[in-house]
Amino acid sequence: MHDPRVPETLEGWCLLHQMFRIRWQAWEALPAAERRARAAETVAAINGMNRGQESTTALSTLLGHKGDLMFIHFRQSFEALQEAQIALARLPLAPFLEPLASYVSVLELGMYEMTGIIHARLGERGLKTGSEEFEQAFDAEMEEQKKRVLPRLFLELPRRRYVCFYPMNKRRGEERNWYGLSFEERAQLMREHGMVGRHYAGAVTQMISGSIGFDDWEWGVDLFADDPVTFKKLVYEMRFDQATVWYGEFGSFWTGLQFSASELPAYLDGAVPRLV
Amino acid sequence: MHDPRVPETLEGWCLLHQMFRIRWQAWEALPAAERRARAAETVAAINGMNRGQESTTALSTLLGHKGDLMFIHFRQSFEALQEAQIALARLPLAPFLEPLASYVSVLELGMYEMTGIIHARLGERGLKTGSEEFEQAFDAEMEEQKKRVLPRLFLELPRRRYVCFYPMNKRRGEERNWYGLSFEERAQLMREHGMVGRHYAGAVTQMISGSIGFDDWEWGVDLFADDPVTFKKLVYEMRFDQATVWYGEFGSFWTGLQFSASELPAYLDGAVPRLV
Amino acid sequence: MHDPRVPETLEGWCLLHQMFRIRWQAWEALPAAERRARAAETVAAINGMNRGQESTTALSTLLGHKGDLMFIHFRQSFEALQEAQIALARLPLAPFLEPLASYVSVLELGMYEMTGIIHARLGERGLKTGSEEFEQAFDAEMEEQKKRVLPRLFLELPRRRYVCFYPMNKRRGEERNWYGLSFEERAQLMREHGMVGRHYAGAVTQMISGSIGFDDWEWGVDLFADDPVTFKKLVYEMRFDQATVWYGEFGSFWTGLQFSASELPAYLDGAVPRLV
Amino acid sequence: MHDPRVPETLEGWCLLHQMFRIRWQAWEALPAAERRARAAETVAAINGMNRGQESTTALSTLLGHKGDLMFIHFRQSFEALQEAQIALARLPLAPFLEPLASYVSVLELGMYEMTGIIHARLGERGLKTGSEEFEQAFDAEMEEQKKRVLPRLFLELPRRRYVCFYPMNKRRGEERNWYGLSFEERAQLMREHGMVGRHYAGAVTQMISGSIGFDDWEWGVDLFADDPVTFKKLVYEMRFDQATVWYGEFGSFWTGLQFSASELPAYLDGAVPRLV
Amino acid sequence: MHDPRVPETLEGWCLLHQMFRIRWQAWEALPAAERRARAAETVAAINGMNRGQESTTALSTLLGHKGDLMFIHFRQSFEALQEAQIALARLPLAPFLEPLASYVSVLELGMYEMTGIIHARLGERGLKTGSEEFEQAFDAEMEEQKKRVLPRLFLELPRRRYVCFYPMNKRRGEERNWYGLSFEERAQLMREHGMVGRHYAGAVTQMISGSIGFDDWEWGVDLFADDPVTFKKLVYEMRFDQATVWYGEFGSFWTGLQFSASELPAYLDGAVPRLV
Repeated sequence: MHDPRVPETLEGWCLLHQMFRIRWQAWEALPAAERRARAAETVAAINGMNRGQESTTALSTLLGHKGDLMFIHFRQSFEALQEAQIALARLPLAPFLEPLASYVSVLELGMYEMTGIIHARLGERGLKTGSEEFEQAFDAEMEEQKKRVLPRLFLELPRRRYVCFYPMNKRRGEERNWYGLSFEERAQLMREHGMVGRHYAGAVTQMISGSIGFDDWEWGVDLFADDPVTFKKLVYEMRFDQATVWYGEFGSFWTGLQFSASELPAYLDGAVPRLV
Repeated sequence: MHDPRVPETLEGWCLLHQMFRIRWQAWEALPAAERRARAAETVAAINGMNRGQESTTALSTLLGHKGDLMFIHFRQSFEALQEAQIALARLPLAPFLEPLASYVSVLELGMYEMTGIIHARLGERGLKTGSEEFEQAFDAEMEEQKKRVLPRLFLELPRRRYVCFYPMNKRRGEERNWYGLSFEERAQLMREHGMVGRHYAGAVTQMISGSIGFDDWEWGVDLFADDPVTFKKLVYEMRFDQATVWYGEFGSFWTGLQFSASELPAYLDGAVPRLV
Repeated sequence: MHDPRVPETLEGWCLLHQMFRIRWQAWEALPAAERRARAAETVAAINGMNRGQESTTALSTLLGHKGDLMFIHFRQSFEALQEAQIALARLPLAPFLEPLASYVSVLELGMYEMTGIIHARLGERGLKTGSEEFEQAFDAEMEEQKKRVLPRLFLELPRRRYVCFYPMNKRRGEERNWYGLSFEERAQLMREHGMVGRHYAGAVTQMISGSIGFDDWEWGVDLFADDPVTFKKLVYEMRFDQATVWYGEFGSFWTGLQFSASELPAYLDGAVPRLV
Repeated sequence: MHDPRVPETLEGWCLLHQMFRIRWQAWEALPAAERRARAAETVAAINGMNRGQESTTALSTLLGHKGDLMFIHFRQSFEALQEAQIALARLPLAPFLEPLASYVSVLELGMYEMTGIIHARLGERGLKTGSEEFEQAFDAEMEEQKKRVLPRLFLELPRRRYVCFYPMNKRRGEERNWYGLSFEERAQLMREHGMVGRHYAGAVTQMISGSIGFDDWEWGVDLFADDPVTFKKLVYEMRFDQATVWYGEFGSFWTGLQFSASELPAYLDGAVPRLV
Repeated sequence: MHDPRVPETLEGWCLLHQMFRIRWQAWEALPAAERRARAAETVAAINGMNRGQESTTALSTLLGHKGDLMFIHFRQSFEALQEAQIALARLPLAPFLEPLASYVSVLELGMYEMTGIIHARLGERGLKTGSEEFEQAFDAEMEEQKKRVLPRLFLELPRRRYVCFYPMNKRRGEERNWYGLSFEERAQLMREHGMVGRHYAGAVTQMISGSIGFDDWEWGVDLFADDPVTFKKLVYEMRFDQATVWYGEFGSFWTGLQFSASELPAYLDGAVPRLV
């Protein structure tokens, strides 16, 4: 049912983030030739995962002890995510990767504005929420919307050097409770929130994914930028918009450098891998 | 005693969820023949656990680092759950399974409506709460109810591809406190809550189990669906009903793909196992 | 000093709960003869710990990943608890036990009613709180009480199949704060709370132990029953009494099956051990 | 600066608590002669650490899984604490000790009463807070105080059998906030709090150390007694004084038996070590 | 955009803190010659990291079980931080270092006063927030400021013996919420807060770094002093300023002794390493 309290969402890529620590000591204990072979096979396997609109796997280094290496898998289905997870667990590099964290989500476009518009439009047509006619008309409108934003639902991986990932919730406190606000209040707060994002549109590519029902937080946020200080500026400025002040809750932050799969052997040899 | 503040519950299957990480590296280090033998023996043992109404053990993969493999044991008693746990710990596959999480609960039907009705009905007959006559009459009514819903208490395992499990509490906050509400307030909130569930009746099979007195949260929720995005839609929509807005607290979410025991060897060989 | 704000307590058994995971793989890697020998020696050692009123050690299995095996040591002193802990760490079974949790406490009878009565009685005799005469008279009264309830302070281990252990606190919140209530308010809430317990007197044996100053929570609760669903019914019903609604805070729950030491070898061979 | 909102403190011993689990299995796998040699060398090393007013290291067993063995190092400086930590990490016993917890603090005497008195006294002399004259006069007064309480700042280790350690904070809540109270309110609450302690003066030796700026809690508390039940009585009674009701927050509790270094070999052979 | 609600910040050194436990047992199991060689090579590598304004890596011991050894890397970019992390993971000492914690941040000067001044100044010139002219004029002013404080943005590592590191947040509570205060309220609170710091200016060198968007807390604080008790005095006194009372939230504290890279071999041989 299209409940007028609930903002509609459109779903795109299925996403799996995987964060690993590298067992450097065990890796370096291998003979050089075996290291070379394992690195090359791993690159080949990851290259095989990169089939554009069908599937993409991005690599980044990570700073600090929460991980050395992060994979972001973009897939068309949970089946394909599961396939990626199994494949990764069996890579020649896998014995040297210790799993520390992960995140399961689906790329999502929240449609606060559009939800209000469609409800109003169908109401004007005299359709009643929950009636079969209403539901079909609503589904048809959403289908239209989906076509319109398809490239954003299945976006191409942003080729920017710096990556930042964090999960977040909307607060459900005893007093301050996002879900206890009216649709209009939430829509207004999201509008203000979006405006801060727009100031950074050129400098940061933002990817929001929904994980309600999939993982421990409600949303995942990926930021990509050419200058890491932009992450700090953006997230700090957002902290002052009212949606974040009273309702934003944040998990851990993972920060690192995106790099090309072909650079993995160099990384495993001790170089900072490049994005080529 | 049948306390009029306390909703009656009916209990069915005893449930044990077990989440494991697979020690892929150790597994793959085995000779192929031994892997085949261990996988086959494990399948045979799990098949032996599947005796319909007597006992069932379901398997799913999991996405992310919170586990690779989840078993859900449905049994008639805690004795039988303990037997399942011990048997699993001694499977030929067990040395390659690292326990990460678990959940002990009992399938439960909450009877808010019926509790009110029976209390009213017995009151009209002039019986007094706590009197022997009242208690016996109440027990008899519950016995009747139990017969009526027996198939839901010992439901057949839903054969749907996607699985989602999470534990939850009703908030017991300093201000917002579920247990501080009157029976009528709670009954009303549960009615609204149930309505959201009903919109998804075709798309999602829901299984609620009680774990007060057994495990760290008050309830466990299993969802089964043919499309994983339905989990997100359902749990998100529920977040806006008043029972959830002010009183719902959630633990971790585990998401994965249900599969047939016979597919376990294929999984252990690197395939995404099917539900056949 | 006998502070009129503080309910008196009487202390009995010193208690140590120890929860272990069994390293099944390493255990099963032993030759059968060695397993037999180690199991038999372990049984003999535990039997040696069971000397009735002097010392008792109870065994249970546990359900789920929070432990496989729980020992509850009943002793006359902390010295004897320490002795039990050291002895257990050196059992032939010890190398196969991974410590996951524990709890240090002293069996305790809370004396809300009696505290009020004695303060009133001594007040009527014209004695002043804190005076030497008052303190001695109070101590003498408590000595009397202790004699009266000695069998409950050093109770015999309940021989019931199902066990449930959990620690708990009284809330010390910014608004709802148990310790900020008057003695009379607390006494009244405890009276109501005790009444729920009494409804289950036949079905559940309850053992309360105090751990303020010893371990991370304020009290430990052990429940013993012939039917595990009784745990759920009891703890759920209690959740609606006002002492629990506003002031009860709960830690983890461990649930399992009590069994006889003589059944340990059978358990280690994969059977569900019996309580004989 | 001597800020009139801030109670003055006097500092004595630098303290490092270290809690370890003993790797019993590895220890017992050593040949008896090696065990004897390692134990003896460890005793000699610890004895070398016990030079009275210069440095002392106390040993206790611990009850439960949070540790088997606790060292408390009393030193004159952080340099000396670091030396103790390094020395301990290189003891012949060290390979058999798994570090589980620790605490860094400085023995502290809080001077609420005296702070008020000195501020008043200097005010009467017409000195202004923050002026050079004021600061020098204040420092001189504190120097005097320090001489007066020197034996309490560098107390001799209490030779009592039972030990209890826990860290604590003063609550900094959104409503109840210790640091938001006036100096007079805090001084009054501390006076009441101290009175409870005084009732137990004979039965319990209390040692307070400050860890703001050093470790994760604000204070550490060590209690020493001849009867462990006294810990429960004292900490319970304190829970009812207003400073604790509204502002006391507690970390984990570690409880055990103090023993003499010379008894370490007996302990490592399975005996309960004595305090001789 | 220069949002008048958001205080401007200036950024300097990129910082990575890394905390490790030393695997003493494995280290000492090495032949003495290998230990010497590994220690010497590690010193050479760290010396190679110390190129003044280009890059510096500081070493400290740590007290307690949260780590033995802390590295603080000062770099000009995240690329260079990543290079340091990879280089460290491949040092001859690395196999003997177990990563326990880390922190990613950027040295930051908060400009509350200056932000207000520039907004006022540009307003007086008739420029409108958000207009291109305004933004350019603002950027130019900040450029000026940056030149003025460059030595503080790329400060030389304070050569003081004692080090204390902790992360912190400004509270975002349901009632007390830093980000819900007006710019003027925050500026006023920061002014008061800064005054406490100034009393300790001679005794403590303070280094604030921002980690919003990079790591799990909002800021990291490093303190350097010649007397560790100063940490306690400073952090305690700050706890009474209103910004901290109501809005300061603190993570773990790591405390230790700074030392010279050349002293690493002595440390690894069991000495307390010096700062030479």
